[in-house]
Amino acid sequence: MMTKSKVQPLLVNYKTLEEFKRFKEYGNQELAMLEDLESNIVENDSESPFFGIYYGSALVARMSLYRVKSKYDKYFTPPQDYLELWKLEVLPDYRGQGYGKDLVDFAKGFGLPIKTNPRINSQAFWEKMDFQKANYDVERDLGENPLIWLPSGVGERETN
Amino acid sequence: MMTKSKVQPLLVNYKTLEEFKRFKEYGNQELAMLEDLESNIVENDSESPFFGIYYGSALVARMSLYRVKSKYDKYFTPPQDYLELWKLEVLPDYRGQGYGKDLVDFAKGFGLPIKTNPRINSQAFWEKMDFQKANYDVERDLGENPLIWLPSGVGERETN
Repeated sequence: MMTKSKVQPLLVNYKTLEEFKRFKEYGNQELAMLEDLESNIVENDSESPFFGIYYGSALVARMSLYRVKSKYDKYFTPPQDYLELWKLEVLPDYRGQGYGKDLVDFAKGFGLPIKTNPRINSQAFWEKMDFQKANYDVERDLGENPLIWLPSGVGERETN
Repeated sequence: MMTKSKVQPLLVNYKTLEEFKRFKEYGNQELAMLEDLESNIVENDSESPFFGIYYGSALVARMSLYRVKSKYDKYFTPPQDYLELWKLEVLPDYRGQGYGKDLVDFAKGFGLPIKTNPRINSQAFWEKMDFQKANYDVERDLGENPLIWLPSGVGERETN
């Protein structure tokens, strides 16, 4: 029987930050979290924008999620708070088992529209998740390929 | 004798858009340009944010460059217009010949600070180009790994 994977918020601690190194999209964000922890700018076990799925004691999938305030919303109508989703990644040995979908479903559960800037070659996955291409606007999007998910009652903002 | 490659602005026309398909980072931006051309929203041969280098008649390297107005500047001090650089890419057969550097030098020639969000595994190249990591700020940077280049007299903005 398929059981739903448990998505949980990830706390900033040395164990989590060590597990992050196994993910391909390890970057400035993770390094900044490590520095903040080392210099006591953040408390051990304080919240992070990351959510993840454990298989046993190993972190096997993660994403970052941030609530953007409606005053900064340039994508949706009516203007509203939305979620920016990034660094969605499942470790190679654990792919094809629905962990990516579990994370996206978790994000959808907040009932807010979602925006993401997908990695190259992930278009098919996002289409299955009912994300659609936003109209590309160079001034707004620059180097991004924005994809959006619209809950019912929400539309895409017109661009010039 | 090494001659400097000639970087030139790329105009929106079917030939250019066809050449763009050879680059890995072909995405929504290029598709939007094609649609705009097809539906006559843009004129044939109108300007694009792309610059490129030709080898004979083939486009072998390109980047996109956009001047962001100082009122949107969250990276530099004093606040000022800066260039956002993205989709810097040299076709595989033409790498290691300085085309990437030629494009970056061209961008630096405007005398403005530059911000880029590099692709995974390109860190070494950007260090050689004298770009440095910006302090990562989740609210500002979300899924980006911002790198910046500071011309003399310009500093990095403090983040929280």
